[in-house]
Amino acid sequence: LALTRRGGCRVVGVGRRAAPLARALRRRAVHEATTDTRRGVRDADIVVLCAPVDRIVPLAATIRPWLKKNALVMDIGSVKAPIVRKLEKIYARGGAAFVGTHPMAGSEKTGVENALPHLYKGATCVLTAGRGTPAAALRRAAAFWRSLGARAFEMNPEAHDDWMALVSHLPHLLAHGLLLTAMKRPGARAHVGRLAAGSFRDVTRVAAADPKQWASIFRMNQTALRRAAGGFAKALAGLSRRGWPPSELARSKAFREVIPGGKK
Amino acid sequence: LALTRRGGCRVVGVGRRAAPLARALRRRAVHEATTDTRRGVRDADIVVLCAPVDRIVPLAATIRPWLKKNALVMDIGSVKAPIVRKLEKIYARGGAAFVGTHPMAGSEKTGVENALPHLYKGATCVLTAGRGTPAAALRRAAAFWRSLGARAFEMNPEAHDDWMALVSHLPHLLAHGLLLTAMKRPGARAHVGRLAAGSFRDVTRVAAADPKQWASIFRMNQTALRRAAGGFAKALAGLSRRGWPPSELARSKAFREVIPGGKK
Repeated sequence: LALTRRGGCRVVGVGRRAAPLARALRRRAVHEATTDTRRGVRDADIVVLCAPVDRIVPLAATIRPWLKKNALVMDIGSVKAPIVRKLEKIYARGGAAFVGTHPMAGSEKTGVENALPHLYKGATCVLTAGRGTPAAALRRAAAFWRSLGARAFEMNPEAHDDWMALVSHLPHLLAHGLLLTAMKRPGARAHVGRLAAGSFRDVTRVAAADPKQWASIFRMNQTALRRAAGGFAKALAGLSRRGWPPSELARSKAFREVIPGGKK
Repeated sequence: LALTRRGGCRVVGVGRRAAPLARALRRRAVHEATTDTRRGVRDADIVVLCAPVDRIVPLAATIRPWLKKNALVMDIGSVKAPIVRKLEKIYARGGAAFVGTHPMAGSEKTGVENALPHLYKGATCVLTAGRGTPAAALRRAAAFWRSLGARAFEMNPEAHDDWMALVSHLPHLLAHGLLLTAMKRPGARAHVGRLAAGSFRDVTRVAAADPKQWASIFRMNQTALRRAAGGFAKALAGLSRRGWPPSELARSKAFREVIPGGKK
């Protein structure tokens, strides 16, 4: 949707099922649509793989022989190292290039019905190069996301995964943990609904994200997530031992500078 | 603000400092204001104590001799049993009556600048009676909150505290825990801000609430909070052991019925 509004290119939607493609056409999110992946990618200058994280490597490997010589392939997965480290080998032979990207925007909602044309405006997009990724491909990837309004910068794929475990995958995990803890208490169906206010709703919101996609993300980033979850369990135990002194962090100037606009 | 808009009564603001009272007058949240507590409450039919949870019992005890015979005293604290169980003795002699109430609305923001006239519309308000609380006082308390648009119902104060530990105090604790875990990692100031997206912001939002007020809430509800935090730690460890299978709960019909409108 952001691309068709931006203009300057022809957007081809490739999918497995006809119905979502028809909806994408109706919403003008794509100019044409096909369920034939080979036909969809063979003339493309840029291919963006929007698949669950565990499908990206096989998909990128499948399409490689069909791509134009200077094609740029990107993905939008939330985990980067396992993808980039495999594809840097598969795409090492030259021709089309692969750059792992992670535009950080979106919500727990899915489908073209929930597409927002300005979703990437002001969003962060991490670019992750592998060994041998051409500098020109990285520049094209950055220009692509910037043309949609994102702030794009490069990071090492392992560092990306480590930080994402902490600032994204861990919050999702906490949402699931809170939901399970609350809903399994006897009487939950009668009480949680009428007693849960903003804090419960906020903390559990992201638990409504697609469970299959998140199972893949948790699994693919398990080493970093185990470290983040372990750190959190220690922090929680420490807080309990000390009688839960609320942190002043969220109100500090330092924090407000780190998360601009995130806190009042 | 809700009361002055509703009309049918005269609202007297009582506070310790003149400046916030002047702001409340300017915003027409009160009809008159005083720093003299005795003057503020002696003609009141209804007194609502809006103080940190650990100040409510001493405040309610202080004003009792000054109150009219049929005055109704309520509080808006997030913890109820330690307050209700003490005040049921202090207010046992008849005359003015005390009903512990907990209108569940508001945000991490404080001050009359952030007051919302429709804050209580559709909000839940829990009424907690002590031993010997007159039925008429309970009915008046319910009518008061309903006149501001809240859904008011009665609960045992201990049950209230137990559920609140799970659906409100625990989410606040998780927000603090996540913030501490993320911000103490080396490099956090450079990375968290640009990498943290919606999930981190949502889960940590409530950590910006007043730390002093929350220290009192955590302390006064420590038994129930310890149980809730222990349950959560077990749930988190269980999820880690099983490779973090994301729960389908938030997407289930049962959950959407429990939290109406809370999830799509």
